[in-house]
Amino acid sequence: MSELSSLNRAGVAASAVQRYATVRAHTAALCEPLAVEDYGVQPFVDASPPKWHLAHTTWFFETFLLKASVPGYTPFHPAFEHLFNSYYNGVGEPFPRPRRGALSRPTVAEVLAYRHHVDEAMQPLLSAEDAAIRSRIELGLHHEQQHQELIVTDIKANLGGNPLRPAYAADAPVPEAAPVALAFNTFNGGKGAIGHVEGAGFSFDNELPRHGVWLRQFAIANRLTTNGEYLAFMEDGGYEQPGLWLSDGWAWRCQQDVAAPLYWQRKEDGWWEYQLDGEAPIRAEAPVAHVSYFEADAYARWAGCRLPTEAEWETAAANAPTAGGEPVKHNGDALPAAGPDTPPSDPAPQASFAQLFACCWQWTASAYAPYPGYRPLAGALGEYNGKFMSGQQVLRGSSCATPPGHARATYRNFFYPKDRWQFTGIRLAR
Amino acid sequence: MSELSSLNRAGVAASAVQRYATVRAHTAALCEPLAVEDYGVQPFVDASPPKWHLAHTTWFFETFLLKASVPGYTPFHPAFEHLFNSYYNGVGEPFPRPRRGALSRPTVAEVLAYRHHVDEAMQPLLSAEDAAIRSRIELGLHHEQQHQELIVTDIKANLGGNPLRPAYAADAPVPEAAPVALAFNTFNGGKGAIGHVEGAGFSFDNELPRHGVWLRQFAIANRLTTNGEYLAFMEDGGYEQPGLWLSDGWAWRCQQDVAAPLYWQRKEDGWWEYQLDGEAPIRAEAPVAHVSYFEADAYARWAGCRLPTEAEWETAAANAPTAGGEPVKHNGDALPAAGPDTPPSDPAPQASFAQLFACCWQWTASAYAPYPGYRPLAGALGEYNGKFMSGQQVLRGSSCATPPGHARATYRNFFYPKDRWQFTGIRLAR
Amino acid sequence: MSELSSLNRAGVAASAVQRYATVRAHTAALCEPLAVEDYGVQPFVDASPPKWHLAHTTWFFETFLLKASVPGYTPFHPAFEHLFNSYYNGVGEPFPRPRRGALSRPTVAEVLAYRHHVDEAMQPLLSAEDAAIRSRIELGLHHEQQHQELIVTDIKANLGGNPLRPAYAADAPVPEAAPVALAFNTFNGGKGAIGHVEGAGFSFDNELPRHGVWLRQFAIANRLTTNGEYLAFMEDGGYEQPGLWLSDGWAWRCQQDVAAPLYWQRKEDGWWEYQLDGEAPIRAEAPVAHVSYFEADAYARWAGCRLPTEAEWETAAANAPTAGGEPVKHNGDALPAAGPDTPPSDPAPQASFAQLFACCWQWTASAYAPYPGYRPLAGALGEYNGKFMSGQQVLRGSSCATPPGHARATYRNFFYPKDRWQFTGIRLAR
Amino acid sequence: MSELSSLNRAGVAASAVQRYATVRAHTAALCEPLAVEDYGVQPFVDASPPKWHLAHTTWFFETFLLKASVPGYTPFHPAFEHLFNSYYNGVGEPFPRPRRGALSRPTVAEVLAYRHHVDEAMQPLLSAEDAAIRSRIELGLHHEQQHQELIVTDIKANLGGNPLRPAYAADAPVPEAAPVALAFNTFNGGKGAIGHVEGAGFSFDNELPRHGVWLRQFAIANRLTTNGEYLAFMEDGGYEQPGLWLSDGWAWRCQQDVAAPLYWQRKEDGWWEYQLDGEAPIRAEAPVAHVSYFEADAYARWAGCRLPTEAEWETAAANAPTAGGEPVKHNGDALPAAGPDTPPSDPAPQASFAQLFACCWQWTASAYAPYPGYRPLAGALGEYNGKFMSGQQVLRGSSCATPPGHARATYRNFFYPKDRWQFTGIRLAR
Repeated sequence: MSELSSLNRAGVAASAVQRYATVRAHTAALCEPLAVEDYGVQPFVDASPPKWHLAHTTWFFETFLLKASVPGYTPFHPAFEHLFNSYYNGVGEPFPRPRRGALSRPTVAEVLAYRHHVDEAMQPLLSAEDAAIRSRIELGLHHEQQHQELIVTDIKANLGGNPLRPAYAADAPVPEAAPVALAFNTFNGGKGAIGHVEGAGFSFDNELPRHGVWLRQFAIANRLTTNGEYLAFMEDGGYEQPGLWLSDGWAWRCQQDVAAPLYWQRKEDGWWEYQLDGEAPIRAEAPVAHVSYFEADAYARWAGCRLPTEAEWETAAANAPTAGGEPVKHNGDALPAAGPDTPPSDPAPQASFAQLFACCWQWTASAYAPYPGYRPLAGALGEYNGKFMSGQQVLRGSSCATPPGHARATYRNFFYPKDRWQFTGIRLAR
Repeated sequence: MSELSSLNRAGVAASAVQRYATVRAHTAALCEPLAVEDYGVQPFVDASPPKWHLAHTTWFFETFLLKASVPGYTPFHPAFEHLFNSYYNGVGEPFPRPRRGALSRPTVAEVLAYRHHVDEAMQPLLSAEDAAIRSRIELGLHHEQQHQELIVTDIKANLGGNPLRPAYAADAPVPEAAPVALAFNTFNGGKGAIGHVEGAGFSFDNELPRHGVWLRQFAIANRLTTNGEYLAFMEDGGYEQPGLWLSDGWAWRCQQDVAAPLYWQRKEDGWWEYQLDGEAPIRAEAPVAHVSYFEADAYARWAGCRLPTEAEWETAAANAPTAGGEPVKHNGDALPAAGPDTPPSDPAPQASFAQLFACCWQWTASAYAPYPGYRPLAGALGEYNGKFMSGQQVLRGSSCATPPGHARATYRNFFYPKDRWQFTGIRLAR
Repeated sequence: MSELSSLNRAGVAASAVQRYATVRAHTAALCEPLAVEDYGVQPFVDASPPKWHLAHTTWFFETFLLKASVPGYTPFHPAFEHLFNSYYNGVGEPFPRPRRGALSRPTVAEVLAYRHHVDEAMQPLLSAEDAAIRSRIELGLHHEQQHQELIVTDIKANLGGNPLRPAYAADAPVPEAAPVALAFNTFNGGKGAIGHVEGAGFSFDNELPRHGVWLRQFAIANRLTTNGEYLAFMEDGGYEQPGLWLSDGWAWRCQQDVAAPLYWQRKEDGWWEYQLDGEAPIRAEAPVAHVSYFEADAYARWAGCRLPTEAEWETAAANAPTAGGEPVKHNGDALPAAGPDTPPSDPAPQASFAQLFACCWQWTASAYAPYPGYRPLAGALGEYNGKFMSGQQVLRGSSCATPPGHARATYRNFFYPKDRWQFTGIRLAR
Repeated sequence: MSELSSLNRAGVAASAVQRYATVRAHTAALCEPLAVEDYGVQPFVDASPPKWHLAHTTWFFETFLLKASVPGYTPFHPAFEHLFNSYYNGVGEPFPRPRRGALSRPTVAEVLAYRHHVDEAMQPLLSAEDAAIRSRIELGLHHEQQHQELIVTDIKANLGGNPLRPAYAADAPVPEAAPVALAFNTFNGGKGAIGHVEGAGFSFDNELPRHGVWLRQFAIANRLTTNGEYLAFMEDGGYEQPGLWLSDGWAWRCQQDVAAPLYWQRKEDGWWEYQLDGEAPIRAEAPVAHVSYFEADAYARWAGCRLPTEAEWETAAANAPTAGGEPVKHNGDALPAAGPDTPPSDPAPQASFAQLFACCWQWTASAYAPYPGYRPLAGALGEYNGKFMSGQQVLRGSSCATPPGHARATYRNFFYPKDRWQFTGIRLAR
């Protein structure tokens, strides 16, 4: 912890106040298009109401910074420690997740007052010299950025599931880039290494330590699978052939009666998709999004390919000249694009990649597990990542809903194989 | 239908416009203490958000009056027929009940605009001569009154289940009547009759026809069971003795881990109860409320008594000099009292009854079934009452949440034996 | 209790030993066609394995007679009190019902040894003078007869649900009676009485006391609804019209995807039915069996009729010249017929009834509730009937699986509205 | 496929008839201690009745050898293709797994006749020269061995869950080896390789191809965790500290109310354990068995260690002088021991391992996933392993229930993290 923070110190110190203000303001800005009524809805058990995200991210600073490091700090409300604890058993018993949408109180105004209260109280800490404090602030801001993405996807789950299909932000720009031909970039195998280089800026604990891997030769797609390609799978009966599916995937597909990506709806004139600016016919060249791991895996098998491991993905991304990428924004950078975009025009085949970042998270064939030598953070913060290392699958890259500056080639996102309310897509390998 | 409406005509015609306005305004008034956030919450699957009640009661007039009887009427919104249909399969597929709380849109403002739109469009119909139309309007207003009661109980379920225990209306008057000794009034058996006298004012179809019953001699309590009496049952291990319970009741009690009435909470200094004005210690003399049929039945068995049948209850209420009663109100009659009150002081024992109305609904031993000769209304409105005649239990009287003018001695309320979020209490018989 | 037994004394005393032997032997005889493997299967949670029935009926005598009345009696096995207790909480915690099929031990041979042990130990009690003991023996034998019927229906549920559709008894006689035209017998209303006349032979406690009822004029069908008539309902879309169904019934029909009576299967050449002698095409003139209350109610509504109340049914049966009836048997009276039979030829219309008994139990419109003045038996035996008086529906008559001598016009059978693995049919009223 | 079979040819050809007879006879021998009633019980949904295993293993030969390769072969029974298909969608719709225990027919005798029929029909194929046929026979025999282990664990689940706790085989020998001190053997990291060497005898497809791995230095325990050590975890509150558990594991532990290994029961004088010879007090030195991955992982965390990856385990096992091991047997080698045994006395610390095989399967930290370059078998047999590669965890070694000759250092067993009815234990790493 101290190493991490000492390495980060220079950058953090200069701009901590500004950075804190910027990140916190971005969270609120994401909620501005909402009606008061939208703040409270929990569309299904895995998603949370925007109001809860606003409060929980604040709870993080109150719990791990103000209560931990400011003598005499008075909590904003005694019940909030319980109400807005997500899953930190080390802090206390969390309020039951499935009931987050049942809390009409505190109101939105009260939650915004909570944010203001904590922001004020945080000011002295932002210029603290203490490495552990700086480290925790940095963690709190990255934590808040993760919830910024969840705010967008959880709002989409709410509005996209409402029969009225209201737009979140109606005037999002429509990307107009030209399609790119699918190609596979080949990498020689042998000794490699993945994971975050300790000290080289922020990372979560689950990206550490950097460690050796042994890879076989592999090839990985230069771009994501498109809606048009995925539709061909559907039209070829992909959802009706159990032989294409993992056993758990087939059971899921049957039980949930899944026959298309989430947010797709069959209309008289073909398939439509709900995006953040409302419903529209699917664009064949845009990347398919909102597929589960099971669907991604079945599609890959149908296509005669497979999904990449996370070591393959990271190896490819590390060598890619276009490894960067920032989400397209609108409304003065405040809001995400309506959905994942088509690739920028014509990246040189075999040499580069499109859509590694800022488009769709990419399912990998790797189960979420500790890296060799992994050590969780001390105390209750050790629950941040480590305890989720079973049953979930790693996703790599970032999405159109990832806030600016949050993506890294070593970033390990993780969801259950059935999950598909995130912007999750497919990059093939073989 | 035409008979009913012709009989009602005189009273209805004189005041239809005024009555419509009054009833509709009362619904809105009940919501005035709410925060916008409170309008959307569905605390559990059987309860509905206040916003949904506001819209559904409006849907009733739009569907059964405006669409049915006003040529060229333009619906406020094409999707509302689906969204706010409660259970009328004859009208179309209703929106799934468990997801009523997931609808952040339409907003509260939009629903209020819907109400305004329909109220305007209804004006010409309010002075119509047509008996069928008058009848349907009357039905619509009684329907709205039923939802007024549900608004109160559903709000209570929301706020009372919130760990913050916010009050719905903090300044409700606390009744201060003196306790009344429990006594049993005896009735000779023989030929009797129950049910609404056709033509004598409004009734629902399920109160018809009036018909003969044969009763044995019975005795029925002069008041409701109190919190103090119910607490004695609890302290005597009432919740731990399967022999006191119906088989389904014991299974329910075990599965749900029930050990007290709903809204009761054990604190260090004894039992507290959430009422509409917030949490407070239970008052021993107030009637016990929010018990299920299973609890009422077990209590009665423990007390060496039983619950009355609906024929017994109606017979007793018909002969009672204090058969009437209106809810105590506050805030200029707009809002219900904080909870059921203690009986008015000193009714003459053996000769009269307290708390028949405006206190707690009273579970009867009678399953909800059609009266001999029962005929449901024609068309989709036939689904109003008749299709619920299995698995439910009749309750009689009315509660502190029943709106003024809605109660009748022949009124048949019905809920499942497990239900207890209504103001449901106990009147013993033997 | 003492009254009951004193009244029964003469008949019981003369033949108690013989009667005990006959009833107990009949239970074993019903199992003779079974393979050892058939004794243990619990086809669904409401049904029990034959082995369990063999043991539980024995447990009844051991628990309520031998342990209660024989000083120094040594139980056959200390664990059996728990294992074979059905639902008597007053005796102890019953073994979980859903796991009855998971008990491969004790083996069939061990259970038969248990029966033998208890039968031997019972011999001295069979000639006891004590009225209470005589009464309990009588109750135990009627209890065993109830389980004889359940053995047949539970075996049918097992074998009829097996894809191999094995016959229980392949050589059952096929009834060949001629069809009878449907007619309705009319009864004047007024004061009537139902219930068992106390002292006039055995009855269960739930048939007491005989009490007055007030009836409106009614008409009731002279025979049961046939397969052919029910098929007309199906072909008219009866299962697709929610307006014909109770609300709970429609939910059940949709959730369970019900579209025909239990044991019916659509084949290329029409509907087939599994009966105790195997699969065969349905016979149009035979009574429809294995319908739920929901189906019976929907059929009656479709037919422009309703189901009778239990008071109507009993009134009709009491006046019917053909009120008696015994099941057709085969194999020397040991086994039931393959299924309910067509009516005996040509009963005089308007004057008599066919199929009141020994054919199908007949759903009534009456919820199972205590008669006015009902008093359950004392002690744990009070759990026999009373605690089931919620949520269930009364059936009247008897079925082809009811053992000889067990039926009465006052008999009240009861099942949940969804249940249909018993031989349950439809008699219309209006 | 052809490579595999050609490599195996010499060994297979010489003894195919004998080997087929031996393996098939062993399956039947395992069932000999059973009562007929035991053959049909499915104690919970994941386990299957012994009768089903007897039939399904036969189905495998009938489906993939006789129907596929013997022109004119007449199946024993037309319905068996459906009834005894486990999960091969490529063959047809399997009979629903949760209802395997509901099939009282075919009887045990009929299933044994099925086995005889298929064994007879298989004789000509056993001496076939065709490599593909030889290969399938070999697969069928290994398949049958897998079900031999399941027969034992499924019988244990049945008898061990029966309140009578009957022994499967009462006279199993009790191992009496001395305890071994826990020590950790250290391995240098670097380039390694795991997986089956193609052609070197039989393996399942999931063990292929052998491939490079890069390992960090690791240390791995010389023996399994004992009951005594696990009890110390329990007594230290291991089941009450969420911080020791994976998130999914804590949810499982709470929902299932788990507080000890499966088959442990707290009695007045301490913990007892059901083993195949009945109930007895736990032996502190014996390895703990029947723990889930969640419990193994929590124990390892409590012990300041972790679980090994499968690459670490295989690396350790490959270098171990005691890599072999065969289960202790009794009754002339036919039946497994009563449970996992204590280690053989005094293996040299740091240099060797005890209990790698024939004791308990050992949970690894590795999710079950395809090896790089994995290719499933062609056709329906491709469903054998590949489709289960999500959500499960790899176990290594073998157990006291693994039949002789079935274990390999490269063998990959897999179960869900919650599963614990197999003989699953703990080997620590760090």
